[in-house]
Amino acid sequence: MLGRGVIPAGNPFLKADDLGLTRGDGIFTTMHVRGGNPWLLEDHLLRLQASAASMGLDLPDPTVLAELAGQACAQWDPQLEGALKMVCTRGSESAGVPTVFGTITPVPPSSKAARDNGLSLKTLSYGYPSGARQDAPWLLGGTKTLSYAINMASQRHAQAQGFDDALWVSADGFALEGPTSTLIWHEADELVTVPAAGTGILPGITAGYALSHAGDLGLTPAERMITPAELAEVSGAWLVSSVRGIAPIRGVDGVPVKESLKHKALRDLLGF
Amino acid sequence: MLGRGVIPAGNPFLKADDLGLTRGDGIFTTMHVRGGNPWLLEDHLLRLQASAASMGLDLPDPTVLAELAGQACAQWDPQLEGALKMVCTRGSESAGVPTVFGTITPVPPSSKAARDNGLSLKTLSYGYPSGARQDAPWLLGGTKTLSYAINMASQRHAQAQGFDDALWVSADGFALEGPTSTLIWHEADELVTVPAAGTGILPGITAGYALSHAGDLGLTPAERMITPAELAEVSGAWLVSSVRGIAPIRGVDGVPVKESLKHKALRDLLGF
Repeated sequence: MLGRGVIPAGNPFLKADDLGLTRGDGIFTTMHVRGGNPWLLEDHLLRLQASAASMGLDLPDPTVLAELAGQACAQWDPQLEGALKMVCTRGSESAGVPTVFGTITPVPPSSKAARDNGLSLKTLSYGYPSGARQDAPWLLGGTKTLSYAINMASQRHAQAQGFDDALWVSADGFALEGPTSTLIWHEADELVTVPAAGTGILPGITAGYALSHAGDLGLTPAERMITPAELAEVSGAWLVSSVRGIAPIRGVDGVPVKESLKHKALRDLLGF
Repeated sequence: MLGRGVIPAGNPFLKADDLGLTRGDGIFTTMHVRGGNPWLLEDHLLRLQASAASMGLDLPDPTVLAELAGQACAQWDPQLEGALKMVCTRGSESAGVPTVFGTITPVPPSSKAARDNGLSLKTLSYGYPSGARQDAPWLLGGTKTLSYAINMASQRHAQAQGFDDALWVSADGFALEGPTSTLIWHEADELVTVPAAGTGILPGITAGYALSHAGDLGLTPAERMITPAELAEVSGAWLVSSVRGIAPIRGVDGVPVKESLKHKALRDLLGF
């Protein structure tokens, strides 16, 4: 915890009136820890900074956060894959000072399995038309807040129906993102994702890395909208995120999705 | 805290991996404490139970929660107005047992002032069309979750523009609710609110009490949709909630709203 160093996992340290808890009023990011270091730390800290700006939160300097990340990773066996979560809340209601901390945990076996086995997805309406959050900053589009109740409920709902994960669809019929991941797909000679600008989806760090290295796979990066039905026609599609890494989409609502011939190369590129 | 009795306010007791904190994955309700007792406790516990069901959360028995509320109130000077918040999270990720606790705090002076001075409101789009959450239980309509980041951002946005509070408007143009309150209005001989069923707004406990006692004011209770523009034409309108109680709406986007001739009687009825 910022200002307090390493706290053993079992020790409680948050007060009952921390606004991160009582209002989900805070932000976070989660990084993949490989070889003892957080992968793409700078990109994560940049996005955290953008989330803080969107929420009017006073985030410590990136160098201070990088130091905190280093403290957490120093406790970690570099042979193990880890998930480093960094959290900044608006703090205790009585104190008015942000609460900043990081936690590091093993990557769950289910996340690793999804890289090999892929995912069956259930489309779920996200309620918003795709442009609803464009001129409405108070709806916190593109902001990674702690308010993930709907994200979690969407995953529970999909899983209760026998699917692995959810794929959110806008009120006007476009695939947006997974509740904790970014949609990317391979179509002709392009590696494509949904534009974050305008739609309010979270700009994915892993997706950003994949697209900016698409050339290494002989592909051109692109951004556009796609419907769930159109996903059945593309050469392959994935949900990507920091901890699960890359998981090929096997099907959407029971309709098969092809496995891209670039799958292995893309997985190698991302190092999962 | 359930199972641990009274914990002094300054003592931290939550772990870094409590899902209420990291995912806003939990529910709450806030009650007005008057004469040393929570007002409308049973209604609040019923709504808490409904929220728990919507989230698939295992809530303790109402009698246990009522006991916990009693424990908190026993610490409180019965001469003071209090706000009793009861929280249930999905618990620590490692433990898998819900975290249940209550806090009791004074009613803020700004809340009391709003009862006398009223509120100037800024309409803000809520993004969803009014029916978007009807057949989408994963969007958690009507559920009082801890994921209030958008609620807080909406209030900050309205206040930054010089207004007292926000009034959320659906994508199809209807007034829905305030970020932490329910809209009611007086029109002809009716006391009216927005239907919770279908719209996904939170069913307000204070609004429910007002409507079920509308007869005492010579009014008939009703539910229907209204546009912000139509609010300028009604006999009076209020935002009601458990702690601020009842606050007359003075204007919406700068357009004046009348003060109802029933205002004093309604405020007396609610006891604020």
